Amino acid sequence: MTIAGHGNITACLVIFIGLFQPVMATDKPADTIEKASANRMEARIKALSQFGKNADGGVDRVAYSDADLQGRAYIISELKALGLSVRIDAAANIFARRAGSNLSAKPILFGSHIDSVPGGGNYDGPTGVIAAMEAIDLLNAADIQTSHPLELVVFSNEEGGLVGSLAMRGHLKMSALTVVNASGRSIGDGTNLIGGNISDVASAKVDTDKYEAFIELHIEQGGILDEEKLDIGVVEGIVGIGWWDVTVEGYANHGGTTAMNNRRDAMVSAAELTLAINRIALRTDGRQVATVGRIQAFPGAPNVIPGRVEMSIEIRDLKQAKIDQVYAAVEKAAAEIAARNKTSIRFKEIDVASEPAPTDPRMRKIIETATQALGYSYRIMPSGAGHDAQDMVHIAPTGMIFVPSVGGVSHSPNEFTTPQAMARGADVLMRAILAVDAGALEK
Amino acid sequence: MTIAGHGNITACLVIFIGLFQPVMATDKPADTIEKASANRMEARIKALSQFGKNADGGVDRVAYSDADLQGRAYIISELKALGLSVRIDAAANIFARRAGSNLSAKPILFGSHIDSVPGGGNYDGPTGVIAAMEAIDLLNAADIQTSHPLELVVFSNEEGGLVGSLAMRGHLKMSALTVVNASGRSIGDGTNLIGGNISDVASAKVDTDKYEAFIELHIEQGGILDEEKLDIGVVEGIVGIGWWDVTVEGYANHGGTTAMNNRRDAMVSAAELTLAINRIALRTDGRQVATVGRIQAFPGAPNVIPGRVEMSIEIRDLKQAKIDQVYAAVEKAAAEIAARNKTSIRFKEIDVASEPAPTDPRMRKIIETATQALGYSYRIMPSGAGHDAQDMVHIAPTGMIFVPSVGGVSHSPNEFTTPQAMARGADVLMRAILAVDAGALEK
Repeated sequence: MTIAGHGNITACLVIFIGLFQPVMATDKPADTIEKASANRMEARIKALSQFGKNADGGVDRVAYSDADLQGRAYIISELKALGLSVRIDAAANIFARRAGSNLSAKPILFGSHIDSVPGGGNYDGPTGVIAAMEAIDLLNAADIQTSHPLELVVFSNEEGGLVGSLAMRGHLKMSALTVVNASGRSIGDGTNLIGGNISDVASAKVDTDKYEAFIELHIEQGGILDEEKLDIGVVEGIVGIGWWDVTVEGYANHGGTTAMNNRRDAMVSAAELTLAINRIALRTDGRQVATVGRIQAFPGAPNVIPGRVEMSIEIRDLKQAKIDQVYAAVEKAAAEIAARNKTSIRFKEIDVASEPAPTDPRMRKIIETATQALGYSYRIMPSGAGHDAQDMVHIAPTGMIFVPSVGGVSHSPNEFTTPQAMARGADVLMRAILAVDAGALEK
Repeated sequence: MTIAGHGNITACLVIFIGLFQPVMATDKPADTIEKASANRMEARIKALSQFGKNADGGVDRVAYSDADLQGRAYIISELKALGLSVRIDAAANIFARRAGSNLSAKPILFGSHIDSVPGGGNYDGPTGVIAAMEAIDLLNAADIQTSHPLELVVFSNEEGGLVGSLAMRGHLKMSALTVVNASGRSIGDGTNLIGGNISDVASAKVDTDKYEAFIELHIEQGGILDEEKLDIGVVEGIVGIGWWDVTVEGYANHGGTTAMNNRRDAMVSAAELTLAINRIALRTDGRQVATVGRIQAFPGAPNVIPGRVEMSIEIRDLKQAKIDQVYAAVEKAAAEIAARNKTSIRFKEIDVASEPAPTDPRMRKIIETATQALGYSYRIMPSGAGHDAQDMVHIAPTGMIFVPSVGGVSHSPNEFTTPQAMARGADVLMRAILAVDAGALEK
């Protein structure tokens, strides 16, 4: 099916839905609302997946690419068809508003993103946007008007560094604007291309009293829910990230003539350090993770004992104190390894500006209560991956809902979340929105 | 000092030496021969080091470079000044012949190379050529004519793959001719440039009954003699080399969301394998060495658990059986590591065509006896590095003499062998030549 052909079908769907557009009405209890439609969500996922579709069954819908433009146009037309009023801020975030009955009430914000990594999948981001659309559909069908206005948000360029949410927080750096992503466009030019206005990007910043709350639904990007056969993850927060570039130095020497007991082999120290990092992260109580993702030996010839090894260490946890504790243990092990092997090990901290971002405890409770009311299984868990929610915690009381990703796969064409799992997530989102609307945060 | 200016000084030296050119005479006992002149050897090292001299005090005299051409021209003029008749074979090896008194006796061959690695030092190769020239000087000064003809050889392109000696063995591969080295020239073009004739390179092959013996003197390229404060190494043979490219495969996954106990981390397996290789080589009886010189993790991002690691393993020993034994132990450890970490480890053997090359036991004895007669300290030892001698063992009874390199440094501008150490080496070479000439191999 060509994209043009698909566009016609979408237009037909829009007309069809338009015929059943509900009239806005006063509050009704949550229990009168239908369950989310797995079929409708799956159809929207499939429709969106056409934009940037690749041969592997995933998408290349990197922010600012033609596919991103087309995907956003599709979503905007769907949002309008849902009766929402759409605006795009200077950072190219899409906001779609549904009016509330109380004119002085702050909007409740919810959403996610639709851009992908290169060679990405169909669920990382879109699941949250489509669940948010499903919530609007359910409210429309149930003829419910909330007290608070509702705003559905589609953040711009999440995968390229949380660009849209950083701008909302007022933390987008000027130096980021010239960074070019796989679309071939810079963040500055790309933002303008998709409807933003980079020269006025400061206007995208929102005050901390603007929104009543923010809720993001997202696939887990890990295998915990899938493995434990749980429906919902109530996210405690987004982990902080510590990143160090490590240089191990020994003495490069002839691999044939230098006796085994006369070597200062940087690679032996690097291997010991890699295992020490793994052991420390495994044996320390808690859910911290530590990864050596990058390593290279120099000069890098099979017949030369490495004189230098460059490697990375990344440590993540919900608490900065735990990151600091694991790092201190790694540093201590490194000193011992370096001395024993007559090598040196230097750590250089890389500023990734990613401190732990706990969600609001009241929002966790609201999501947990909604999940329980629906009879869905769940666990409270951290998010090991970064999300726009980590910026939003600085703007509004923030909650986050995970749905399982089969096999924990993400950033891959093989990403898959079942329609039923998505629908359960949308149910929880819907209930959480209504609970916030009913004043749960003020209790 | 410019090279042109230096050329004039060399010319003066040649004339000066020419005045004292001895008349060839009949045999005299070795004890009547003067000791080698450390000053003269040092002067020649310094003179040769002008060609390709670099800012670090070493040389860039890669085979086929202008510096190689100039260095060869200097050596040829010196060889002629010593009264030798010079020819260049089709593989661009330089042979300089001193007549013997017995017209039916086979020549005794000795020498080494003068080409360097990029960023090389002044001693790896030149020490052996200059020691050979010193031996001729001593014979000339002592008015000695040997029974056997003597041939001093300067092998072409040693550092680029033993090109000259492989051609003499008849083992230079056609596929090697197009290989381009740091000179920017191919082995084929470069050989022609420096006086060879690549279209007739088969003519460089020598019969196994052509030479009475071959002796190479070389710096150790390891730190054993220097550390043990020994004058001479009697080389048992050149070690064989086994080289494997290893692929470790796990499962690339998100470094933030994948729990520590749920990872299939290729880097953890690669680190364990690196340490297993080191441990096996250290703990196995003998002098084998094993090196992981090259390693890289993929995809190579700090926040992604490596799904694949590529690494090299090199094992060297004087005996093939020992290489096989160490490799078998490594393979067994790898199977255990792979299974424990739910990863796979594949080995691909790389053909480096470098089987162990033991020197001739009679030649070892001749060199050892010469060393003892001179009162120099020594040890019998393998060569961990490759040398032209490893090809020559297939052509003639071969012996090899090591002199200490300070700190074991080689392939570096910091290479240094003291003039006194070089002179002691030349003394041993001289005595060994005379012993072979006196029929020691026939005893």
